[in-house]
Amino acid sequence: MKKQLRRSNCPINFGLEAFGDTWSLLIIRDIVYFGKKTYGDFLRSDERIATNILANRLAQLERHGILVKTPHPIDRRKEVYTLTEKGIDLIPILVEMANWGAKYDPDTGAPQEWIALVNSDKENMIRLIQDTVREGGSVFVGPNSVIDRLAQRE
Amino acid sequence: MKKQLRRSNCPINFGLEAFGDTWSLLIIRDIVYFGKKTYGDFLRSDERIATNILANRLAQLERHGILVKTPHPIDRRKEVYTLTEKGIDLIPILVEMANWGAKYDPDTGAPQEWIALVNSDKENMIRLIQDTVREGGSVFVGPNSVIDRLAQRE
Repeated sequence: MKKQLRRSNCPINFGLEAFGDTWSLLIIRDIVYFGKKTYGDFLRSDERIATNILANRLAQLERHGILVKTPHPIDRRKEVYTLTEKGIDLIPILVEMANWGAKYDPDTGAPQEWIALVNSDKENMIRLIQDTVREGGSVFVGPNSVIDRLAQRE
Repeated sequence: MKKQLRRSNCPINFGLEAFGDTWSLLIIRDIVYFGKKTYGDFLRSDERIATNILANRLAQLERHGILVKTPHPIDRRKEVYTLTEKGIDLIPILVEMANWGAKYDPDTGAPQEWIALVNSDKENMIRLIQDTVREGGSVFVGPNSVIDRLAQRE
């Protein structure tokens, strides 16, 4: 990768140059919370991202080493996007953003029980989410979701 | 304020619609870490924000209730921007972003001692930063900075 001109060496600016737009973190959210994996999955989210923006953001996240693209194991016409360790390390940021949105949006769709649960033991819950995503699961969707794991513990 | 059309009721999307661009969080960073307060202060940061973008982002952050603008106590030609409680609640997000940038940017300007210090007792350090900002101080700059407070404790 050609070295690009950077605005500064501030660590917050470093993040903004990689994912600081209104769409990139929604793709990461789709993977972490809803187990989405393909271009078509991301296209079908509530926010209705445009195809050209989606393609652009996926390429940018790949270039920054946040996502990796691999062939779909069954359908060879498709590709599967997964988070690298660098991407999995964005999860604490997502969790704090979800907290903030849930607190200040009177019309939030965030399940309050989930927000309360995460905050009751934040460090460990973040670790559980990260482990789940590392193993191919997600928070809410799929057979090996965080929600399922927590239910099995009870 | 007229109700705008929203993309979804996702709490992460809520944040992105308020501050999801490459500049807004740099303004919040300038206030929290460096005690900046005026239009001229923000204009002089390393990233060299353009005047029209700065004016646009300040207005947007005010509209979202993250910043408030008041007359400068001495120089009446200036205005002072401060964080509301809603803005102070963005500090955990900034801290997590700084962690991520410091970890993954080989050329980071983040002081590693500071990053280690924050992570050694994250919840309390975030609370200390928030209290300091609430009282008009900042992390690194000014007579009542977080750095000074910590030094006085020793």
